[in-house]
Amino acid sequence: MEMPVTRDEEEEIMPRVYNFSAGPAVLPEEVLKEAAQEMLDYKGTGMSVMEMSHRSKAYGAIIEEAEDSLRSLMHIPEHYKVLFLQGGASQQFAMIPMNLMKNRSADYIVTGQWAKKAYEEACIYGKANKIASSEDKTFSYIPDCSDLPVSADADYVYICENNTIYGTKFKKLPNTKGKLLVADVSSCFLSEPVDVSQYGLIYGGVQKNIGPAGVAIVIIREDLITKDTLPGTPTMLKYSIHAENGSMYNTPPAYGIYICGKVFAWLKKRGGLSAMKEYNEKKAAVLYDFLDASSLFCGTAAKEDRSLMNVPFVTGNKELDEKFVKEAKAAGFENLKGHRSVGGMRASIYNAMPMEGVEKLAAFMKKFEADNA
Amino acid sequence: MEMPVTRDEEEEIMPRVYNFSAGPAVLPEEVLKEAAQEMLDYKGTGMSVMEMSHRSKAYGAIIEEAEDSLRSLMHIPEHYKVLFLQGGASQQFAMIPMNLMKNRSADYIVTGQWAKKAYEEACIYGKANKIASSEDKTFSYIPDCSDLPVSADADYVYICENNTIYGTKFKKLPNTKGKLLVADVSSCFLSEPVDVSQYGLIYGGVQKNIGPAGVAIVIIREDLITKDTLPGTPTMLKYSIHAENGSMYNTPPAYGIYICGKVFAWLKKRGGLSAMKEYNEKKAAVLYDFLDASSLFCGTAAKEDRSLMNVPFVTGNKELDEKFVKEAKAAGFENLKGHRSVGGMRASIYNAMPMEGVEKLAAFMKKFEADNA
Repeated sequence: MEMPVTRDEEEEIMPRVYNFSAGPAVLPEEVLKEAAQEMLDYKGTGMSVMEMSHRSKAYGAIIEEAEDSLRSLMHIPEHYKVLFLQGGASQQFAMIPMNLMKNRSADYIVTGQWAKKAYEEACIYGKANKIASSEDKTFSYIPDCSDLPVSADADYVYICENNTIYGTKFKKLPNTKGKLLVADVSSCFLSEPVDVSQYGLIYGGVQKNIGPAGVAIVIIREDLITKDTLPGTPTMLKYSIHAENGSMYNTPPAYGIYICGKVFAWLKKRGGLSAMKEYNEKKAAVLYDFLDASSLFCGTAAKEDRSLMNVPFVTGNKELDEKFVKEAKAAGFENLKGHRSVGGMRASIYNAMPMEGVEKLAAFMKKFEADNA
Repeated sequence: MEMPVTRDEEEEIMPRVYNFSAGPAVLPEEVLKEAAQEMLDYKGTGMSVMEMSHRSKAYGAIIEEAEDSLRSLMHIPEHYKVLFLQGGASQQFAMIPMNLMKNRSADYIVTGQWAKKAYEEACIYGKANKIASSEDKTFSYIPDCSDLPVSADADYVYICENNTIYGTKFKKLPNTKGKLLVADVSSCFLSEPVDVSQYGLIYGGVQKNIGPAGVAIVIIREDLITKDTLPGTPTMLKYSIHAENGSMYNTPPAYGIYICGKVFAWLKKRGGLSAMKEYNEKKAAVLYDFLDASSLFCGTAAKEDRSLMNVPFVTGNKELDEKFVKEAKAAGFENLKGHRSVGGMRASIYNAMPMEGVEKLAAFMKKFEADNA
């Protein structure tokens, strides 16, 4: 049996590509190597993690360690629960109102397609109020959220903190005027330190910055977990059921959680979220600095709202965009095509994207610019 | 980097155990080996399947091939859709009534804990009628379902076809008197041929007989997929949304589906479901024949309703049961402890459990019987 050859070992033969996918996305090679090594026998148990009863001691230790690592990375206060769920962010769009919309009223700040979908789903369950939006400029900026008309009866104020498609991020949390803040952090999860106590609920699908698709992580203040959900809420969509059962009300997405745990350990080894922020800022600066100086390429997001994770850019010429994506792919830079609603290109540079990948991309862009002047 | 050593190669050093877990459960070694080999580079793409955009061509081919293989294995008629979903069987307990309970009435045949949970969930949404039950004898048999009081307004009749905990299986489908049949086949999925046209909807979590936890497969007759769901049904819980989007309304549990696809291919190579049935009957017979002849052990399920997949048995002496489980574990037979509601032992012998494992277990039981006579 032969193992795959990696970039580090024998670049010529079978290189790993630089994967700029918006999600599912690049994972640390170290994590993938460990997973491959443990595939047939996890630490002497004689079985794969995929084959383990979720009620076994071995698996119990895996999920517990994953939660502990996440708590330590994010400094999650004790009065917050961590839930490993299924259904992705899209299922949270319903779970959040079904569990939190006690007054049947909630305020949504709509800064992209995902926030909009969350808003539309909430409209099924009550009065969802769109208190701010940046749709007027294709969601290319974050609106001023310092003094919004927060509804007096709002159960919460909802944001999508980093907008994957448009490459924007809230640099400052909105002034919720005392209301609960609920945030989808799917595409900025663990990319920098976060003050959990500022939120009632933080959640995200893991498939962008943490692990394989099929796991959603919800971090929720304990007092918000009640049995008093909207009538007709399915049992599986109640936070209380998952909290009472330590994310094991039914069989959890066990293998995905195992990979997440490995990524948490990898992040801890790299110095935690402060170190990641520093690294991510340096990485993003390589691209943004190039874009700002370029005569061909330009970024599409408002400078002050630029995401560290998703960098959309265009040449302004559709054919040239297509040519760039095609040539980049041939050179080993994958998934650079932008979302259809923005067009052009997008480089998603999550935690696991090495500096080297960003530097090589910038060099490639520079060459492309010269060749197409 | 060293690869794990498998049973076949060097038994002394790091053996794989015989894993009799009820689920998550044993997977084919061949599948695990392939997954390990492809972990860092799937077929020259330069990335892991975990890292692939679900919208990429490479992943599109994976999910398409998985569906094609499943269709061919089960001879699924063209007017049935195959959906790869999240949330396990437990989420289907709600999705089924939310999507199918047009008259707000459904009949449930309660043959175990999972059917009971499905029944209880349906009670949230309408009039769920328990038209038969085997709870009077700890679900150790399947009731006569040839002439049940099927409700005139029932939208469907629900069964759990194989009862994991109690080791029983419907050998004949119930007479639904023209009503739609809905079946949870989680623990007998692909263990033998099935006539899909007898069902309106067949579904199961894959973590028992197919793949890693986190994927549920729903096979549903197309005319049952309507937008006319119960009010308040979350978008993610509508079959129509997933059917319209080829199971990609949002990011699917991509890696799990990839492993399922490998298991489907493995089953095809082994001759499909007729061959698996034959093999599974032989495997089960080894244990049942031993149990029937044993003076110490006895099976707990009614003989005529015995499952080919889950074999519960007891000694009749609690201490002896515990001693057996402990000594079996030490000898490399894992997860033989029975469910707390039945006690004793349970050997789950899914498709991926080799004959060798069952034969060795029977030999071990024989020795234990002699030693403890």
